[in-house]
Order: sequence, then C-alpha cells, then structure tokens
Amino acid sequence: MPRCIDWQDDGILLLDQTVLPREEHWLRIGAVDELVDAIRRLAVRGAPALGVAGALGVALAARAGGPPGAVDTAARRVREARPTAVNLGWGVDRALARLGDGPDAVLAEALAVLDEEVTRCREVGERGADVLLALLAGRAGGPPGGDPPNRLRILTHCNTGWLACVEWGTALGVVRVLHERGLVARVYADETRPLLQGARLTGYELARMGVDYRIVVDSAGPTVLARRMVDAVLVGADRVAANGDVVNKIGTYPLALAAARAGVPFLVAAPESTVDAGTASGADTPIEDRDPAEVLSFAGVTTGPAGAGAYNPAFDITPADLVTAIVTDRRVIRPAEAGS
Amino acid sequence: MPRCIDWQDDGILLLDQTVLPREEHWLRIGAVDELVDAIRRLAVRGAPALGVAGALGVALAARAGGPPGAVDTAARRVREARPTAVNLGWGVDRALARLGDGPDAVLAEALAVLDEEVTRCREVGERGADVLLALLAGRAGGPPGGDPPNRLRILTHCNTGWLACVEWGTALGVVRVLHERGLVARVYADETRPLLQGARLTGYELARMGVDYRIVVDSAGPTVLARRMVDAVLVGADRVAANGDVVNKIGTYPLALAAARAGVPFLVAAPESTVDAGTASGADTPIEDRDPAEVLSFAGVTTGPAGAGAYNPAFDITPADLVTAIVTDRRVIRPAEAGS
Repeated sequence: MPRCIDWQDDGILLLDQTVLPREEHWLRIGAVDELVDAIRRLAVRGAPALGVAGALGVALAARAGGPPGAVDTAARRVREARPTAVNLGWGVDRALARLGDGPDAVLAEALAVLDEEVTRCREVGERGADVLLALLAGRAGGPPGGDPPNRLRILTHCNTGWLACVEWGTALGVVRVLHERGLVARVYADETRPLLQGARLTGYELARMGVDYRIVVDSAGPTVLARRMVDAVLVGADRVAANGDVVNKIGTYPLALAAARAGVPFLVAAPESTVDAGTASGADTPIEDRDPAEVLSFAGVTTGPAGAGAYNPAFDITPADLVTAIVTDRRVIRPAEAGS
Repeated sequence: MPRCIDWQDDGILLLDQTVLPREEHWLRIGAVDELVDAIRRLAVRGAPALGVAGALGVALAARAGGPPGAVDTAARRVREARPTAVNLGWGVDRALARLGDGPDAVLAEALAVLDEEVTRCREVGERGADVLLALLAGRAGGPPGGDPPNRLRILTHCNTGWLACVEWGTALGVVRVLHERGLVARVYADETRPLLQGARLTGYELARMGVDYRIVVDSAGPTVLARRMVDAVLVGADRVAANGDVVNKIGTYPLALAAARAGVPFLVAAPESTVDAGTASGADTPIEDRDPAEVLSFAGVTTGPAGAGAYNPAFDITPADLVTAIVTDRRVIRPAEAGS
C-alpha cells in the first residue's frame, strides 16, 4: 500500500479522502495554504495522519523561508485548521522545535515523525496478528488449527487502516498482516453510520488489498457474530481508560456485547498513546455529541421528516469485561482477565 | 390518526408510503389495476395493512362486476402483487369466500377484516401500556412512581405504527396509548438501515402524533441504553417462536443485548397471529437475505467502492432470555422468566 500522506518532490503528496471510494485523487501540496485547506475539508484525517501532516506542514513553511516569524505564523495556521485534533498540534510542535537548526533539520524531524508513525502501526499490526492467532489456537476447534492453519473471518468497524494511519493501520493493520501471511478468508466491514467510513474507506482499503470483504449495516454485525460467521472482532480505539474500558466510534459496544455472547474474541488494536492512565474509566470520558444533521441525511439525501431532531453521539464505551485483549505497539493488555 | 388504508366513496383510500415523509399523498383507488400497482411499489406495506388491502381489493372487483370469473381473476392478480406476503393472500381469501352472497357481502367482510385489524392492534397497545407501567412501577426508583407518574422515555426500532397496521400500531401502538395517557416524555427511534423505516416512517408518525422524538443511527441505540436515557425498549415481531425467541427487523438483537445489560425492560408487541407454535426456536426460522444493493446505496447514492459485496440479512433473532415480555392482543408471555 502507498502512504496516505508522504513527502515527495519537495512537497506533500496526499490522497484526497473526500472523493474516495469514487475517485483516487492525489493532491500535490507545495504551500501551507493548500495544506490548511486540505486539513479543513478532511482530505486528510485520522490522528496519526494528522500528526504527520502538521510536521510536514512546518517543514514546507521552513523551506519556503520568508520574513522573520513567517514559519511561526504558518505553523499556527496549520494547527488551527483543526484546533481539537491533538495529534495535529503535536506534529507541528515536533517539527517547529528544530527550526533553529535550519529547514533541513525541520524536514528531517518531520520525516522522523512519519517513520515513527509507520513503525508504531506496523508493530501494532504484527503483535495483533500474533495475539489473535494464539488466542484462536488455544480454542478447541478454533479455526487456525491444523497445518497449514485455516484462514480467518474478521468483523471490523469504522476505518482503522492506512488512510487514518499513514501506511499501516491499527485494527486494519492486523488484518493486513494476517492477509500477508495468507490467513484472511473474509472481512465483514460495518458501514459505520452516520459518516460511512466503513463502507467508503475500509471498503476501499480492503478492495485495494485484494481481501474478500462484505459490507454490512451496523445493526447486522451482532447477527454476523450470533451466526458464528466470524472468528474475531477487530476494532481500533480513540481512548483506553486506566481500567481497560475502550472509547471508540459509535457502534463498537454492540459488537462487544454480541461477541461476548457468541464467545468470539474481541480485540482492540491501538497505539500506546491511546492508553490514558489519567482517565480512570470510560464513564470519566466526555463523549462528543456531534451535529444531528449527520444522522438526518444519508450521503446527502435527507431521511427524516422536516424538523426532525436527532441524537448523535460520536463514540461509545465498551466496558473492560467485554474486551478480550488490547494490543498496542508496546504491549498486550487483557482487561477481561484482570477484572475476573 | 387516520387509517393508512380505508374504504371511502366507493373506493380505497390509501396513504402513499413511498413519498413519506417528504410528501403526504393520498391515493384514491377505484380499480384493481391501480391497487396492484400500489402494492407492488410498496405504497402500502406491513402485514396487517396488506391483509386489509387484499380484502378491499376483492370488494372492489366484486362491485365492478364483469364477465364470469372476473372477480377470481382480479383476486389472483391482487394476491400475486406480492406473492410472499402471507397476510395479503389471507385478506383476499377472507373476502372471496363471501362472493356467493353478492358484492355487498364481500365488502362487508372486507370491512370486518379492517375492523378486526384495528381492534386487535388497539388491544395490543392498551395491554402493552399496562404491562409496561406495571413492570416499571415494580422497580425501585422506577420512573412511573409518584402521583402523577413520571413520563416515560422509550427506544424503538423500525416502523410498527399505523402505517404498517392500518390505524393502530403494535410497538408504536403502545407508545400511542401511553401518549394519550400523557405518559410519554420522549421516543428515541432507530433510523433502521438499510431501508430507513425508522427515520422515514416512525419519524413521520411520531411527528404527527406530537410526540417529542429523536432519531439515532442504529448503532447508537445500545449507548442510549447504557446511558440510561430510556426506561424501556419497545419493538414489534415478525415471528415469535414457541420457546419465546423473537424474529424481528435486523437491529433488534443488539438492543436486547444492551437492554439486558442496562437492566432496562425489553418489550415485544405483536398480534397473536405472530406467535408460531410450529417453530420451536429462532434457530429454526429461515432468515431472508435481501439484495446487497440495499446496503450499498441509499436514494440512488452509492456508498461502497465499485464492485463491493454486501451481506444483507433482513431479520435477526433475539433469544428468549433477553425478552422481558411479549404482549399480544390475547395475552402476555414472559419468556425470560420461563427460562430462568
């Protein structure tokens, strides 16, 4: 797979995610203005990818030169393109800290940010694949028994692939590692209402990887589990609380409930930076309620009656006891075991 | 509320459900051809409403007269407009059986079918409201305590109102009875992908009833429950197995899982005819897998990549142990208690 954002020919190259999967359009960005625009309209999204965008944006400004203070001004504009995206500001700061050493040092730092991000996710992917295979091998009649092992059927939610994470994904990175090992039979991807990241972006990534996949409406995921049509659930995380509760895209919790009832492993794959020791439990996490308009329309078409209201929580909380394992680039956490 | 289908001025009057909630367009149907067309394009839908449509269609033909065998031919055409809809054929047969007594007797029988359908659902609604209030009154700190009782917050799925059931609904009939008693604070309605009956039809009915409501994406229902934002879940049923397993629109099962975990009552409201003593359990029910195109697009807008596949089960199975009560026009079944 390519990287969704990279440095090429003295500029930033990024895949415009707003027109996926209809169109695969790469943007060549040579000026900070263009980058700010791309970030604002979500042409690039996902915490890791935004961190890289922030760092490369400062590199772009540093190389362009200009009057005193020009780079600082540019850095502020990049950061403010999405003020609540923590990683964006973090990437900007990493690159900006090297400004005193000249433009080449700034670029080197930005490329280091990019490399670290790629390495981190690759580690999540490899470890996640190993953990999952070990879990399933331990089960009587588990699918990867025998020699060679049987191939796996996976259920996933939202988009956790290279479009969000530069070159490797988190949960979808695990799928990619398993696919490279020839171990993926099929992936079921929740469409992920309201913004359809599953159908649009995960569908695109799986098609491009050459993985056999089926899109399902979000409410069908629990039935896929009840019918034992998958061997594992693999999802990402926006935050992991100290007690192992997992905050992730709305629609994750019902999959965990159904996986527990079906006795199917529920794995979370995320960078270590997602683990937030300062948050005791999921209940202590503020949940972002987003614009009702996202719910009341579907791909631009209005669904409900005129004047309808909607409730649109962006995330849900999966209690630790439903989580089989959380795999990061550093370790494996088993919250369900800890609680029992 | 009006009836979604009725007999008026020597013809059938029905509300065209294909253009709801955008437009409230009533069709006046004076010939069997027009009725067949309306049934085919889902202008009228829902098992009870289709039963009435079948019976009234035969009345229309009987009154039109024509050469020998004309009514039988017309009846066959009505029945074949949706060959798998059991109630449609049942309604046709009920009216056709009176053909020997003349057109007026046929019409009287068709109107009896209509009246019985209305009465049956009204009974489901009244009994459901009583059962729910009794359940909640028995809970420590339950919302309807005090005098007057506090108003209820309800979560529902799909469309189970008068658009499907002529004049009263099943699950939404319970809501309507509670609303008439001044006991509804708010209803959360799942949008119900893939065909969005919740957003389109339940939204329309709730707005028309004057009930405060919010539409949620299907995957947010379990979070509404986890946050204790509702006092009960109310759904319909397409079939109830002998052991109390409930077959209903895809997306019902995750609500039952989340309701059980949250300790919130999960009520099923359905006509007694839905209880199928001949089916031992949900596992013995064939589940209809529908066209993947329903998942992959909405209102003509494609979501997934070109060539994407989808898996589109129309129903799911809620195991009996997750069901607090099943309320029909004749009785109350408590599957969870029976199993424990």
